Amino acid sequence: MISETRRTAQLRKAAGEIFQAALDAANPRVAIQRHLQRDGEKLLVNGAIYDLGQGRVYVVGAGKASAAMAAAVEEILGDRVSDGVVVVKDGHSLPLQRIRVHEASHPVPDARGVHGTAAILALLAETRAEDLVIVLISGGGSALLPAPVEGTHLTEKQAVTRELLACGAAIEEINAVRKHCSRLKGGQLARAVQPASCLTVALSDVIGDPLDVIASGPTVPDPTTYQDALGVLRRYELQDRIPASIWRHLERGARGEQPETPKAGEACFEKAHHLIVGNNLQSLLAAQERAARLEFRTLIVTTALQGESREAARALSAFLLEIRRSGIPIPPPACLLFGGETTVTVRGKGKGGRNQELALAGAIAIAGAEDLVIFSAGTDGSDGPTDAAGAVADGETWARAKAAGLDPLRALEDNDSYHFFQGLGDLITTGPTLTNVMDVTLLLAG
Amino acid sequence: MISETRRTAQLRKAAGEIFQAALDAANPRVAIQRHLQRDGEKLLVNGAIYDLGQGRVYVVGAGKASAAMAAAVEEILGDRVSDGVVVVKDGHSLPLQRIRVHEASHPVPDARGVHGTAAILALLAETRAEDLVIVLISGGGSALLPAPVEGTHLTEKQAVTRELLACGAAIEEINAVRKHCSRLKGGQLARAVQPASCLTVALSDVIGDPLDVIASGPTVPDPTTYQDALGVLRRYELQDRIPASIWRHLERGARGEQPETPKAGEACFEKAHHLIVGNNLQSLLAAQERAARLEFRTLIVTTALQGESREAARALSAFLLEIRRSGIPIPPPACLLFGGETTVTVRGKGKGGRNQELALAGAIAIAGAEDLVIFSAGTDGSDGPTDAAGAVADGETWARAKAAGLDPLRALEDNDSYHFFQGLGDLITTGPTLTNVMDVTLLLAG
Repeated sequence: MISETRRTAQLRKAAGEIFQAALDAANPRVAIQRHLQRDGEKLLVNGAIYDLGQGRVYVVGAGKASAAMAAAVEEILGDRVSDGVVVVKDGHSLPLQRIRVHEASHPVPDARGVHGTAAILALLAETRAEDLVIVLISGGGSALLPAPVEGTHLTEKQAVTRELLACGAAIEEINAVRKHCSRLKGGQLARAVQPASCLTVALSDVIGDPLDVIASGPTVPDPTTYQDALGVLRRYELQDRIPASIWRHLERGARGEQPETPKAGEACFEKAHHLIVGNNLQSLLAAQERAARLEFRTLIVTTALQGESREAARALSAFLLEIRRSGIPIPPPACLLFGGETTVTVRGKGKGGRNQELALAGAIAIAGAEDLVIFSAGTDGSDGPTDAAGAVADGETWARAKAAGLDPLRALEDNDSYHFFQGLGDLITTGPTLTNVMDVTLLLAG
Repeated sequence: MISETRRTAQLRKAAGEIFQAALDAANPRVAIQRHLQRDGEKLLVNGAIYDLGQGRVYVVGAGKASAAMAAAVEEILGDRVSDGVVVVKDGHSLPLQRIRVHEASHPVPDARGVHGTAAILALLAETRAEDLVIVLISGGGSALLPAPVEGTHLTEKQAVTRELLACGAAIEEINAVRKHCSRLKGGQLARAVQPASCLTVALSDVIGDPLDVIASGPTVPDPTTYQDALGVLRRYELQDRIPASIWRHLERGARGEQPETPKAGEACFEKAHHLIVGNNLQSLLAAQERAARLEFRTLIVTTALQGESREAARALSAFLLEIRRSGIPIPPPACLLFGGETTVTVRGKGKGGRNQELALAGAIAIAGAEDLVIFSAGTDGSDGPTDAAGAVADGETWARAKAAGLDPLRALEDNDSYHFFQGLGDLITTGPTLTNVMDVTLLLAG
């Protein structure tokens, strides 16, 4: 096998270190400790002060990172935590002192999620005005907190989501319907927290950190109405394709026969505060700092990278080639940082993930160029249905692949990026990181 | 009709001024005068000196801008120009003093192009070692300089190009074949210039300014061979689909029975120099300077924007929304500058161009956002088969369109960006600019 030139090997090593800085910043423990500090009987939250001496502290939450977030809260508040329940994805739990951890199914919700949600609601039924409820939210929280409205079943709610996805409805439209089929989403958890104070602590896995989208916004006002939800279903002509129980529920709501989701200005938000302790941007900023310390010129280009992975790869490769050519937008040694989440339209029969496919398409586009590296990985440590987080490619990947009997073009055509990079030893593997702030893509030019 | 808010109107006006600076920098006269100066009997070219007292000066060239470039050379050198021939696209000629202008067909070459090319070759047959030949190259030069090899006809060459395009061959592959079917492309004009000195002055309309691609590189070494050309035709199984005369010619060449295109290091390049006087980057730099003077923070993001126009629009809109949200990559008031050339896959029956479609898809993506502007236009003053150069859109375009009875989504679906922006009075029209350094796209956030 041909080995990398020295400078390229250095760049690859640097990319790994820079990515590690992004991961460290998204570590739930680090993220929460950066924003929450205890000072005796006071909890300091980015300048705001909560008096812990007055009432009890409850911790609830859901999401892939919520056990790790709960552990960090226990570390800070210790025995001041009275009780708590968090729901996590299977395999994402941690041993905790006072907060109970429920495992449930993700991305398809199951009965265990319903039970976990019921445990949270039971806990919140006890709250008093002097209490503080800390709500820990992270990616996956929506599926892990299923709470079908009365008279409907979990599988009926799922059927609606499936129909909406199949007809190409926008995520905002899907959420308008989902929030009105749930007893918790769209701000309704904030109602359940009343009369206590409500501090939402979130790790964002959504572009732009919209609080009403992360985990379906259980503690923020919902701008949409029952009428909107019915309008969406009518627009896609789904009246006859969704369960009758759901349709009846939405119609009753539209007639004012049951309460709307809470709107901005409602009483339940008077004692509600929100804090995003980790997101893609904070991770990119940490990565940028590390890159600067490694003596790269740096630029965070966007945290909104999206679209088809191989198309994004083409645009990113054009960036790299232009840095080499003209030093635009910054001259080498350069590190451009991108965040976001691309998607793969699967056409082949291979194995891979969005980050691995991006790296593969990038390797093809920069083949033969000197000292250019593309590094792309998911901060949750997983990329598609593989055990890798992503992959790293450079201008020599093409030649090394050919020498090893691997065909980059065929691998791309067959969506087989995993086996391609496995064959080269260029997969990035971190194991589960218990966090998720989307993907990080690094472009390095030496 | 709803009118724009004041700040948005200011941003749109600023975008127009910034684009004008890009156009000014690409103006052939300005571009040439920036790089070529006369000092008595000396011609100063970016530090190099040509002694005009020794021999004659000839000017030849081809491309959409070559008459305007020739006018600039006449202005500088006056009666020191002995003779000259340039070939331009129909409607792109200018009255000149000493240099003859031939009009010919573009993009499909015709017999007038063949005659113009013959006139150039006749002129170059007279050159002596003490002479200087200035070769003026700009976009379109390849089609305007047709010189089929002996025993083949223009239409046969065209048939080959058509077959290669139809089977999806890469531009490098197409050029390898075309250069070996021509008596001028791929460095062969440099041979014809011998024994005189050869100064190529180019306006680049290609991403990355590859001199061997602009106008098919008539004065630079050709890295490809007859064998390569045959390999391309075999790879796409075109042996039986191309004219027999062309195949025979390539086989004779591969057997060494006729001269190869000149390679790097050959004598004909010893007295050859090249100068790119205008390109997308130089225009973006001028535009950036103007934007900075208008008190925007500025960043040239890339000169390699490409891909499907509406996909590019989505990525660019994400940039704008992120500037509004988090000040990444630069906070408002911000002007991001992009260059390149996107493409439209026509599916509808409407009228439009790549820049207009990009602006339309952008208007949809940023609908409702405050004080964001997307301005996109071709520096040649034309965009698709329309009389507009491009269009300007902002966060209020959607609402203004709705109020005017225009449907943005339907217009995009039908590739009908021209009538959409015509209805809003938001087309950009410059008329023919007699230059081309690809497109300029500006993103402004106030």
